[in-house]
Amino acid sequence: MPHINIKNEILGIRGLMEYKPKSGKALTMLAQALLVEDSPLSRFEREVIATYVSSLNKCEFCRESHRAIAKKVGGVENEETVDAIIADPTSAPISDKLKSLLQLASMVQKTGPQVTDRIVGELVKGGISEEEVHDTVLIAAAFCMFNRYVDGLGASKPKDISGYQQSADLISKMGYVREPNL
Amino acid sequence: MPHINIKNEILGIRGLMEYKPKSGKALTMLAQALLVEDSPLSRFEREVIATYVSSLNKCEFCRESHRAIAKKVGGVENEETVDAIIADPTSAPISDKLKSLLQLASMVQKTGPQVTDRIVGELVKGGISEEEVHDTVLIAAAFCMFNRYVDGLGASKPKDISGYQQSADLISKMGYVREPNL
Repeated sequence: MPHINIKNEILGIRGLMEYKPKSGKALTMLAQALLVEDSPLSRFEREVIATYVSSLNKCEFCRESHRAIAKKVGGVENEETVDAIIADPTSAPISDKLKSLLQLASMVQKTGPQVTDRIVGELVKGGISEEEVHDTVLIAAAFCMFNRYVDGLGASKPKDISGYQQSADLISKMGYVREPNL
Repeated sequence: MPHINIKNEILGIRGLMEYKPKSGKALTMLAQALLVEDSPLSRFEREVIATYVSSLNKCEFCRESHRAIAKKVGGVENEETVDAIIADPTSAPISDKLKSLLQLASMVQKTGPQVTDRIVGELVKGGISEEEVHDTVLIAAAFCMFNRYVDGLGASKPKDISGYQQSADLISKMGYVREPNL
Protein backbone atom coordinates (compact mmCIF):
# COMPACT_ATOMS: atom_id res chain seq x y z
CA MET A 1 0.00 0.00 0.00
CA PRO A 2 1.38 3.44 -0.91
CA HIS A 3 1.86 6.08 1.83
CA ILE A 4 -1.09 8.03 0.36
CA ASN A 5 -4.47 6.81 -0.91
CA ILE A 6 -3.94 6.85 -4.68
CA LYS A 7 -7.56 5.79 -5.35
CA ASN A 8 -6.61 2.95 -7.68
CA GLU A 9 -5.15 -0.56 -7.40
CA ILE A 10 -2.48 -0.20 -10.09
CA LEU A 11 0.94 -1.42 -8.95
CA GLY A 12 4.17 0.55 -9.12
CA ILE A 13 4.75 3.92 -10.75
CA ARG A 14 1.69 3.56 -13.01
CA GLY A 15 -0.58 3.73 -9.96
CA LEU A 16 1.06 6.99 -8.86
CA MET A 17 0.83 8.43 -12.39
CA GLU A 18 -2.85 7.51 -12.62
CA TYR A 19 -3.43 9.45 -9.36
CA LYS A 20 -2.14 12.64 -11.00
CA PRO A 21 -2.44 12.16 -14.77
CA LYS A 22 -0.96 15.43 -16.00
CA SER A 23 2.47 14.87 -14.49
CA GLY A 24 1.99 11.15 -15.22
CA LYS A 25 1.67 11.89 -18.93
CA ALA A 26 4.89 13.93 -18.96
CA LEU A 27 6.71 11.17 -17.05
CA THR A 28 5.47 8.53 -19.52
CA MET A 29 6.57 10.65 -22.49
CA LEU A 30 9.98 11.08 -20.86
CA ALA A 31 10.42 7.32 -20.36
CA GLN A 32 9.42 6.75 -23.99
CA ALA A 33 11.83 9.42 -25.30
CA LEU A 34 14.74 8.16 -23.18
CA LEU A 35 14.32 4.39 -23.37
CA VAL A 36 12.56 3.68 -26.68
CA GLU A 37 12.91 6.54 -29.15
CA ASP A 38 15.87 7.75 -31.19
CA SER A 39 19.26 7.23 -29.53
CA PRO A 40 22.67 5.91 -30.60
CA LEU A 41 22.35 3.54 -27.60
CA SER A 42 20.41 0.30 -28.08
CA ARG A 43 17.26 -0.32 -26.04
CA PHE A 44 19.23 -3.03 -24.22
CA GLU A 45 22.01 -0.62 -23.24
CA ARG A 46 19.50 1.98 -22.06
CA GLU A 47 17.45 -0.49 -20.00
CA VAL A 48 20.66 -1.80 -18.43
CA ILE A 49 21.64 1.75 -17.39
CA ALA A 50 18.14 2.27 -15.93
CA THR A 51 18.33 -1.03 -14.02
CA TYR A 52 21.83 -0.31 -12.70
CA VAL A 53 20.96 3.19 -11.44
CA SER A 54 17.77 1.82 -9.80
CA SER A 55 19.90 -0.82 -8.12
CA LEU A 56 22.34 1.84 -6.83
CA ASN A 57 19.34 3.79 -5.50
CA LYS A 58 18.05 0.58 -3.86
CA CYS A 59 14.66 0.98 -5.60
CA GLU A 60 13.38 -2.59 -5.79
CA PHE A 61 10.35 -1.89 -7.98
CA CYS A 62 12.33 -0.02 -10.67
CA ARG A 63 15.29 -2.41 -10.51
CA GLU A 64 13.11 -5.49 -11.03
CA SER A 65 10.87 -3.80 -13.63
CA HIS A 66 13.78 -2.68 -15.78
CA ARG A 67 15.81 -5.86 -15.15
CA ALA A 68 12.88 -7.78 -16.69
CA ILE A 69 12.59 -5.32 -19.61
CA ALA A 70 16.37 -5.41 -20.24
CA LYS A 71 16.18 -9.21 -20.44
CA LYS A 72 13.26 -9.02 -22.88
CA VAL A 73 14.82 -6.46 -25.24
CA GLY A 74 18.30 -8.05 -24.94
CA GLY A 75 17.11 -11.54 -25.81
CA VAL A 76 17.70 -14.88 -24.10
CA GLU A 77 21.44 -14.77 -24.85
CA ASN A 78 21.82 -11.66 -22.66
CA GLU A 79 19.72 -12.69 -19.65
CA GLU A 80 22.64 -13.77 -17.46
CA THR A 81 24.61 -10.69 -18.50
CA VAL A 82 21.93 -8.42 -17.02
CA ASP A 83 22.21 -10.15 -13.64
CA ALA A 84 26.03 -10.01 -13.82
CA ILE A 85 25.91 -6.25 -14.49
CA ILE A 86 23.68 -5.59 -11.50
CA ALA A 87 25.97 -7.69 -9.28
CA ASP A 88 29.16 -5.94 -10.48
CA PRO A 89 29.48 -4.11 -13.82
CA THR A 90 33.29 -4.05 -13.69
CA SER A 91 33.52 -7.86 -13.88
CA ALA A 92 30.47 -8.45 -16.14
CA PRO A 93 31.03 -9.90 -19.63
CA ILE A 94 30.21 -6.65 -21.48
CA SER A 95 32.02 -4.26 -23.82
CA ASP A 96 34.42 -1.63 -22.49
CA LYS A 97 32.02 0.93 -23.93
CA LEU A 98 29.08 -0.26 -21.81
CA LYS A 99 31.34 -0.45 -18.75
CA SER A 100 32.31 3.21 -19.30
CA LEU A 101 28.67 4.26 -19.73
CA LEU A 102 27.70 2.47 -16.50
CA GLN A 103 30.59 4.19 -14.70
CA LEU A 104 29.34 7.55 -16.02
CA ALA A 105 25.80 6.68 -14.85
CA SER A 106 27.09 5.82 -11.37
CA MET A 107 28.76 9.25 -11.13
CA VAL A 108 25.51 10.99 -12.07
CA GLN A 109 23.64 8.83 -9.53
CA LYS A 110 25.87 10.28 -6.78
CA THR A 111 25.72 13.91 -7.92
CA GLY A 112 25.94 15.88 -11.18
CA PRO A 113 29.20 17.76 -10.52
CA GLN A 114 31.09 14.41 -10.28
CA VAL A 115 31.12 14.51 -14.10
CA THR A 116 33.85 16.84 -15.35
CA ASP A 117 35.09 18.12 -18.72
CA ARG A 118 38.13 15.86 -18.36
CA ILE A 119 36.03 12.72 -17.76
CA VAL A 120 33.76 13.41 -20.75
CA GLY A 121 36.81 14.28 -22.88
CA GLU A 122 38.34 10.88 -22.10
CA LEU A 123 35.09 9.05 -22.91
CA VAL A 124 34.88 10.81 -26.29
CA LYS A 125 38.56 10.09 -27.01
CA GLY A 126 37.77 6.42 -26.27
CA GLY A 127 35.11 6.36 -29.01
CA ILE A 128 31.91 7.24 -27.12
CA SER A 129 29.83 9.87 -28.96
CA GLU A 130 28.67 13.09 -27.36
CA GLU A 131 25.05 12.03 -27.87
CA GLU A 132 25.77 8.77 -26.03
CA VAL A 133 27.18 10.84 -23.14
CA HIS A 134 24.06 13.04 -23.17
CA ASP A 135 21.65 10.13 -23.21
CA THR A 136 23.48 8.24 -20.46
CA VAL A 137 23.57 11.31 -18.19
CA LEU A 138 19.86 12.03 -18.72
CA ILE A 139 18.76 8.39 -18.24
CA ALA A 140 20.78 8.17 -15.00
CA ALA A 141 19.38 11.52 -13.82
CA ALA A 142 15.81 10.51 -14.73
CA PHE A 143 16.06 7.30 -12.70
CA CYS A 144 17.21 9.35 -9.71
CA MET A 145 13.74 10.92 -10.09
CA PHE A 146 11.68 7.81 -10.91
CA ASN A 147 13.29 5.87 -8.03
CA ARG A 148 12.58 8.66 -5.51
CA TYR A 149 9.00 9.07 -6.77
CA VAL A 150 8.32 5.33 -6.36
CA ASP A 151 9.94 4.91 -2.94
CA GLY A 152 9.09 8.37 -1.58
CA LEU A 153 5.40 7.44 -1.96
CA GLY A 154 5.85 3.73 -1.21
CA ALA A 155 4.34 2.46 -4.50
CA SER A 156 2.94 -1.09 -4.31
CA LYS A 157 5.10 -3.88 -5.70
CA PRO A 158 4.04 -7.07 -7.54
CA LYS A 159 3.85 -10.09 -5.23
CA ASP A 160 6.40 -12.05 -7.25
CA ILE A 161 8.63 -11.93 -10.30
CA SER A 162 5.82 -12.91 -12.71
CA GLY A 163 4.19 -9.49 -12.15
CA TYR A 164 7.32 -7.78 -13.49
CA GLN A 165 7.58 -10.18 -16.42
CA GLN A 166 4.05 -9.55 -17.71
CA SER A 167 4.63 -5.81 -17.76
CA ALA A 168 8.09 -6.25 -19.34
CA ASP A 169 6.58 -8.32 -22.13
CA LEU A 170 4.15 -5.51 -22.97
CA ILE A 171 6.73 -2.71 -22.70
CA SER A 172 9.30 -4.56 -24.83
CA LYS A 173 6.71 -4.82 -27.62
CA MET A 174 4.70 -1.60 -27.24
CA GLY A 175 6.99 0.86 -25.46
CA TYR A 176 5.93 3.01 -22.51
CA VAL A 177 3.21 5.04 -24.23
CA ARG A 178 0.06 2.93 -24.51
CA GLU A 179 -2.72 5.45 -25.06
CA PRO A 180 -2.89 6.78 -28.64
CA ASN A 181 -3.39 10.40 -27.47
CA LEU A 182 -0.23 10.52 -25.37
CA MET B 1 30.78 25.69 -21.94
CA PRO B 2 28.99 22.34 -21.49
CA HIS B 3 31.01 19.10 -21.43
CA ILE B 4 29.58 18.21 -24.87
CA ASN B 5 29.04 20.38 -27.96
CA ILE B 6 25.31 21.12 -27.77
CA LYS B 7 25.39 23.07 -31.09
CA ASN B 8 23.60 26.10 -29.68
CA GLU B 9 24.41 29.04 -27.41
CA ILE B 10 21.37 28.77 -25.12
CA LEU B 11 22.28 28.93 -21.43
CA GLY B 12 21.27 26.42 -18.79
CA ILE B 13 18.91 23.50 -19.16
CA ARG B 14 17.19 25.02 -22.22
CA GLY B 15 20.41 24.61 -24.21
CA LEU B 16 20.58 20.91 -23.30
CA MET B 17 16.89 20.42 -24.14
CA GLU B 18 17.35 22.13 -27.51
CA TYR B 19 20.18 19.66 -28.28
CA LYS B 20 17.74 16.73 -27.91
CA PRO B 21 14.23 18.15 -28.40
CA LYS B 22 12.16 15.00 -27.85
CA SER B 23 13.28 14.47 -24.25
CA GLY B 24 13.42 18.28 -23.92
CA LYS B 25 9.72 18.51 -24.71
CA ALA B 26 8.83 15.90 -22.05
CA LEU B 27 11.02 17.68 -19.47
CA THR B 28 9.35 21.03 -20.25
CA MET B 29 5.88 19.49 -19.93
CA LEU B 30 6.90 17.99 -16.60
CA ALA B 31 8.14 21.34 -15.25
CA GLN B 32 4.87 22.94 -16.38
CA ALA B 33 2.72 20.21 -14.77
CA LEU B 34 4.65 20.30 -11.49
CA LEU B 35 5.32 24.00 -11.02
CA VAL B 36 2.49 25.82 -12.84
CA GLU B 37 -0.54 23.61 -13.37
CA ASP B 38 -3.15 22.34 -10.96
CA SER B 39 -1.91 21.72 -7.40
CA PRO B 40 -3.12 22.50 -3.88
CA LEU B 41 0.33 24.11 -3.40
CA SER B 42 0.82 27.69 -4.55
CA ARG B 43 3.34 28.47 -7.29
CA PHE B 44 5.40 30.20 -4.59
CA GLU B 45 5.48 27.10 -2.38
CA ARG B 46 6.40 24.88 -5.33
CA GLU B 47 9.19 27.16 -6.56
CA VAL B 48 10.58 27.36 -3.02
CA ILE B 49 10.69 23.54 -2.82
CA ALA B 50 12.47 23.45 -6.22
CA THR B 51 14.98 26.09 -5.09
CA TYR B 52 15.65 24.37 -1.77
CA VAL B 53 16.25 20.93 -3.34
CA SER B 54 18.53 22.50 -5.96
CA SER B 55 20.44 24.17 -3.15
CA LEU B 56 20.80 20.82 -1.30
CA ASN B 57 22.08 19.29 -4.56
CA LYS B 58 24.51 22.22 -4.94
CA CYS B 59 23.19 22.98 -8.43
CA GLU B 60 23.94 26.68 -8.86
CA PHE B 61 22.08 27.15 -12.15
CA CYS B 62 18.81 25.61 -10.88
CA ARG B 63 19.09 27.19 -7.44
CA GLU B 64 19.53 30.71 -8.87
CA SER B 65 16.94 30.19 -11.64
CA HIS B 66 14.23 29.03 -9.25
CA ARG B 67 15.23 31.46 -6.49
CA ALA B 68 14.56 34.26 -9.00
CA ILE B 69 11.25 32.67 -10.10
CA ALA B 70 10.15 32.12 -6.47
CA LYS B 71 10.80 35.81 -5.79
CA LYS B 72 8.78 36.83 -8.86
CA VAL B 73 5.74 34.64 -8.13
CA GLY B 74 5.90 35.34 -4.37
CA GLY B 75 5.95 39.11 -4.78
CA VAL B 76 8.26 41.74 -3.28
CA GLU B 77 7.01 41.02 0.25
CA ASN B 78 8.42 37.47 0.07
CA GLU B 79 11.82 38.18 -1.49
CA GLU B 80 13.79 38.08 1.78
CA THR B 81 11.86 35.00 2.89
CA VAL B 82 13.17 33.05 -0.12
CA ASP B 83 16.77 33.82 0.84
CA ALA B 84 16.07 32.94 4.47
CA ILE B 85 14.62 29.55 3.42
CA ILE B 86 17.69 28.70 1.34
CA ALA B 87 19.97 29.69 4.25
CA ASP B 88 18.02 27.64 6.83
CA PRO B 89 14.37 26.62 6.43
CA THR B 90 13.98 25.73 10.12
CA SER B 91 14.56 29.35 11.22
CA ALA B 92 12.91 31.07 8.22
CA PRO B 93 9.74 33.16 8.83
CA ILE B 94 7.39 30.69 7.11
CA SER B 95 4.36 28.59 8.11
CA ASP B 96 4.78 25.28 9.92
CA LYS B 97 3.18 23.68 6.88
CA LEU B 98 5.87 24.94 4.48
CA LYS B 99 8.57 23.91 6.97
CA SER B 100 7.12 20.38 7.00
CA LEU B 101 6.97 20.25 3.20
CA LEU B 102 10.60 21.38 2.95
CA GLN B 103 11.60 18.72 5.47
CA LEU B 104 9.79 16.10 3.38
CA ALA B 105 11.56 17.40 0.24
CA SER B 106 14.94 17.12 1.97
CA MET B 107 14.23 13.45 2.81
CA VAL B 108 13.37 12.71 -0.83
CA GLN B 109 16.53 14.56 -1.91
CA LYS B 110 18.60 12.08 0.10
CA THR B 111 16.74 8.93 -0.98
CA GLY B 112 13.14 7.78 -1.48
CA PRO B 113 12.97 5.15 1.29
CA GLN B 114 13.64 7.88 3.92
CA VAL B 115 9.93 8.67 3.62
CA THR B 116 7.85 6.19 5.60
CA ASP B 117 4.16 5.50 6.22
CA ARG B 118 4.59 6.94 9.72
CA ILE B 119 6.11 10.21 8.47
CA VAL B 120 3.37 10.73 5.89
CA GLY B 121 0.72 9.78 8.48
CA GLU B 122 2.00 12.50 10.80
CA LEU B 123 2.02 15.11 8.04
CA VAL B 124 -1.57 14.27 7.13
CA LYS B 125 -2.59 14.34 10.80
CA GLY B 126 -1.01 17.83 10.96
CA GLY B 127 -3.30 19.10 8.18
CA ILE B 128 -1.24 18.49 5.02
CA SER B 129 -3.30 16.87 2.26
CA GLU B 130 -2.28 13.66 0.50
CA GLU B 131 -2.09 15.55 -2.80
CA GLU B 132 0.30 18.06 -1.19
CA VAL B 133 2.47 15.12 -0.07
CA HIS B 134 2.39 13.69 -3.62
CA ASP B 135 3.29 16.98 -5.28
CA THR B 136 6.11 17.73 -2.82
CA VAL B 137 7.64 14.26 -3.29
CA LEU B 138 7.47 14.49 -7.08
CA ILE B 139 8.85 18.06 -7.24
CA ALA B 140 11.75 17.08 -4.97
CA ALA B 141 12.38 13.91 -7.03
CA ALA B 142 12.19 15.85 -10.31
CA PHE B 143 14.80 18.36 -9.14
CA CYS B 144 17.11 15.46 -8.28
CA MET B 145 16.88 14.80 -12.04
CA PHE B 146 17.00 18.37 -13.37
CA ASN B 147 19.99 19.18 -11.11
CA ARG B 148 21.94 16.10 -12.26
CA TYR B 149 21.12 16.77 -15.94
CA VAL B 150 22.38 20.37 -15.68
CA ASP B 151 25.56 19.62 -13.72
CA GLY B 152 26.27 16.20 -15.26
CA LEU B 153 26.58 17.94 -18.64
CA GLY B 154 28.03 21.19 -17.26
CA ALA B 155 25.33 23.49 -18.69
CA SER B 156 26.43 27.10 -19.20
CA LYS B 157 25.40 29.65 -16.56
CA PRO B 158 24.42 33.31 -17.00
CA LYS B 159 27.34 35.68 -16.29
CA ASP B 160 25.46 37.47 -13.52
CA ILE B 161 22.19 37.59 -11.63
CA SER B 162 20.42 39.69 -14.31
CA GLY B 163 20.46 36.66 -16.65
CA TYR B 164 18.38 34.70 -14.15
CA GLN B 165 16.02 37.61 -13.56
CA GLN B 166 15.12 38.05 -17.23
CA SER B 167 14.21 34.39 -17.54
CA ALA B 168 12.29 34.45 -14.22
CA ASP B 169 10.24 37.39 -15.44
CA LEU B 170 9.16 35.43 -18.52
CA ILE B 171 8.47 32.17 -16.65
CA SER B 172 6.46 33.89 -13.91
CA LYS B 173 4.17 35.35 -16.61
CA MET B 174 4.12 32.62 -19.27
CA GLY B 175 5.02 29.39 -17.48
CA TYR B 176 7.57 26.88 -18.76
CA VAL B 177 5.85 25.95 -22.02
CA ARG B 178 6.46 28.68 -24.61
CA GLU B 179 5.78 27.02 -27.96
CA PRO B 180 2.07 26.63 -28.73
CA ASN B 181 2.49 23.03 -29.96
CA LEU B 182 4.08 21.77 -26.76
